[in-house]
Amino acid sequence: MRPDALAGAAKAGARKLAHLPTDTKNKVLSTLEGLLLERRAFLKAENEKDIREARQAEMPAPLVERLTINDKVIDEMASGLRDLIQLPDPVGEIVKVWRRPSGLLVGRMRIPIGVICIIYESRPNVTVDAFSLCFKSGNGVILKGGKEAVHSNTALFGLIRESLEKEGVAGDAVQFIDTGDRTYLYNLLKLTDSIDLVIPRGGEALIRSVAEQSRVPVLKHYKGVCAIYVDEHADTKVALDVCLNAKVQKPATCNAMETLLVHRSIALQFLPAMAKAFVERGVRIKGCRRTKELVPGAEPAGEADWHEEYLDLILTVKIVDSMDEAIAHIGTYGSEHTDAIITTDYNNAWRFLREVNSSLVLVNASTRLNDGYQLGLGAEMGISTTRLHAFGPMGLEELTVTKFVAFGEGQLRT
Amino acid sequence: MRPDALAGAAKAGARKLAHLPTDTKNKVLSTLEGLLLERRAFLKAENEKDIREARQAEMPAPLVERLTINDKVIDEMASGLRDLIQLPDPVGEIVKVWRRPSGLLVGRMRIPIGVICIIYESRPNVTVDAFSLCFKSGNGVILKGGKEAVHSNTALFGLIRESLEKEGVAGDAVQFIDTGDRTYLYNLLKLTDSIDLVIPRGGEALIRSVAEQSRVPVLKHYKGVCAIYVDEHADTKVALDVCLNAKVQKPATCNAMETLLVHRSIALQFLPAMAKAFVERGVRIKGCRRTKELVPGAEPAGEADWHEEYLDLILTVKIVDSMDEAIAHIGTYGSEHTDAIITTDYNNAWRFLREVNSSLVLVNASTRLNDGYQLGLGAEMGISTTRLHAFGPMGLEELTVTKFVAFGEGQLRT
Repeated sequence: MRPDALAGAAKAGARKLAHLPTDTKNKVLSTLEGLLLERRAFLKAENEKDIREARQAEMPAPLVERLTINDKVIDEMASGLRDLIQLPDPVGEIVKVWRRPSGLLVGRMRIPIGVICIIYESRPNVTVDAFSLCFKSGNGVILKGGKEAVHSNTALFGLIRESLEKEGVAGDAVQFIDTGDRTYLYNLLKLTDSIDLVIPRGGEALIRSVAEQSRVPVLKHYKGVCAIYVDEHADTKVALDVCLNAKVQKPATCNAMETLLVHRSIALQFLPAMAKAFVERGVRIKGCRRTKELVPGAEPAGEADWHEEYLDLILTVKIVDSMDEAIAHIGTYGSEHTDAIITTDYNNAWRFLREVNSSLVLVNASTRLNDGYQLGLGAEMGISTTRLHAFGPMGLEELTVTKFVAFGEGQLRT
Repeated sequence: MRPDALAGAAKAGARKLAHLPTDTKNKVLSTLEGLLLERRAFLKAENEKDIREARQAEMPAPLVERLTINDKVIDEMASGLRDLIQLPDPVGEIVKVWRRPSGLLVGRMRIPIGVICIIYESRPNVTVDAFSLCFKSGNGVILKGGKEAVHSNTALFGLIRESLEKEGVAGDAVQFIDTGDRTYLYNLLKLTDSIDLVIPRGGEALIRSVAEQSRVPVLKHYKGVCAIYVDEHADTKVALDVCLNAKVQKPATCNAMETLLVHRSIALQFLPAMAKAFVERGVRIKGCRRTKELVPGAEPAGEADWHEEYLDLILTVKIVDSMDEAIAHIGTYGSEHTDAIITTDYNNAWRFLREVNSSLVLVNASTRLNDGYQLGLGAEMGISTTRLHAFGPMGLEELTVTKFVAFGEGQLRT
């Protein structure tokens, strides 16, 4: 199908989807859950084709792992659907109501955004996750997965279509692009009349190319250069635990700590012990001059290091003279993703919370908590560091917008 | 200044503005109010230069009127500032807080968007309105007014800068572009690292050219083709009053009614009386075939008429067989701006409210009420029909976004 025909079909389908009863939506999700479990063998066989081609193309092992659909991945997709069924339907929720002096009752009601295009790389489970979040929030969706996963995604999309059909829901609102043709995608991203939002999920190169080509608004984050500032009034036990967790619990994630900022008054007491714990866990430390004095094994950190998202067991460490310096460092080198302060001082905690404008700012807690499930949004569609519409994890609510509704008794404009 | 230097200065300035105390912001607004009143003669003299050039260029009279700064316009700008000072500062407001099972307290805190570029046409009062809304919400602003108003805007901008200086606020966050050079503007609209949002205010041609050129997200509305559906269960007295108000109270506005849809069961009882009232007020009626039978003076409405935003005393009228047909008509020809139903039927009222996804949907009230002041938002920055971030009138809150904040006691990711 040509891009405009495909997007047009999604738009027309999305108009109907916007008014689908919650019950019908949940039935579709439940049917899909059943099909995923029932067709395990088929899904694994189709996935095997992608895996074989990936191995022939000498894809690196971690990428092959991300591409793999095994029983665990299938079980996780299914349990994700069960969780989503339990979440409240955001569509139609009236989030606020107030009365005007004229007696007019005014409110804001959640409605779907319209058609959302999700562009992702080789993880096939995103096909199910992205569809289900868009569907539950009443949005049409255009799914564009990586070409390495084309057999897996086609199989998963087949099950999605089958679930819609079984429940008598027209399938037009859900579209899938199986071409690896960049021009096709770029033409699609020009169709501002039919597509309302683009969410690219993947590496920085993918996201930058989408952002450059799209005429449709894009919600994205390029990278997560997350910092923890250990204040002079920190509880060092809390600081040790939180910093270790933020760095080593899963270093390849966007919300892992990349930079540790330590107030000079607490550095002597805190940093050698902290460095010891890091080194025991295999973390390489790159530090400022003063850090190197306290941590003999530290390598020197250059200007580029402070900007770097390592996604690895590497950490930059800087000793600062004040919280001002820490906040300025985050302003210069950070990515407005996730930053934390460790402190027992009330005023410093509040000042840091107010003045650091990242998508999540924490006091005495790990940066790894920036995640839809962890924060209590339920499932999420990635994290936005775009300061418009949604800033931070995007859950079901972030896939809606509010319209104004007004209940009158003949009110006029005078 | 080059576009990148100007936008960069605005961005750096905006970072400081984001944390300015409410009191300081209100003092600047109050100082500006005083200056506007004190420098009346200067403002009118500068404006006179624009008026003279406009007359020489044979600008049409209504446009010259919009360009004019007289005592009334000055008084309105000043009273707008007084009203804005009274409105709560949205920055730092925590809009929601919840506790996670781990004990982590999570909330959402309002922060400014960043730098907003406002592009407008010949009304010089927008210079003050746009600055003051962005300033109160902590945003940097780049003001680009029409070249016809360059003397007026330069004078007003001078007073804005003077107010900032008097209160010791660095002026970088507020920039003004006095060039009419399109290339300059288009280059500016590519600077996604420095500018977070563009709001064009004016005619459809201006808005379309900005939307086409901008790489920065744009909130806009192209036009308002607003409809009122008079249901079979309408109170005809309410219907008469509301429809007359929606059409004639100020026909040149985007929220004036352009299309009247009447259920066939009530048409005979309602439409002749309604048409009589319209004709008495000078409204030309273009109707469907059945309308013409009931309203002998009506002209025939062609396909193009249903799409048209007349902004004039012209109205299209269609008799429909059902509410479904009315909703379908609005879906096909409407602009997702403002639509209303007149009914006494509970189910029809709710169904219309739910199924018509325009930025404001009303029951038994005039479409003319779609306005920030009327709906109770206070001052507004225009109306958005973009279904992202803000849909409907944009007040102070719509010029902010929320970040997540989390108050912990050592919580980790496990």
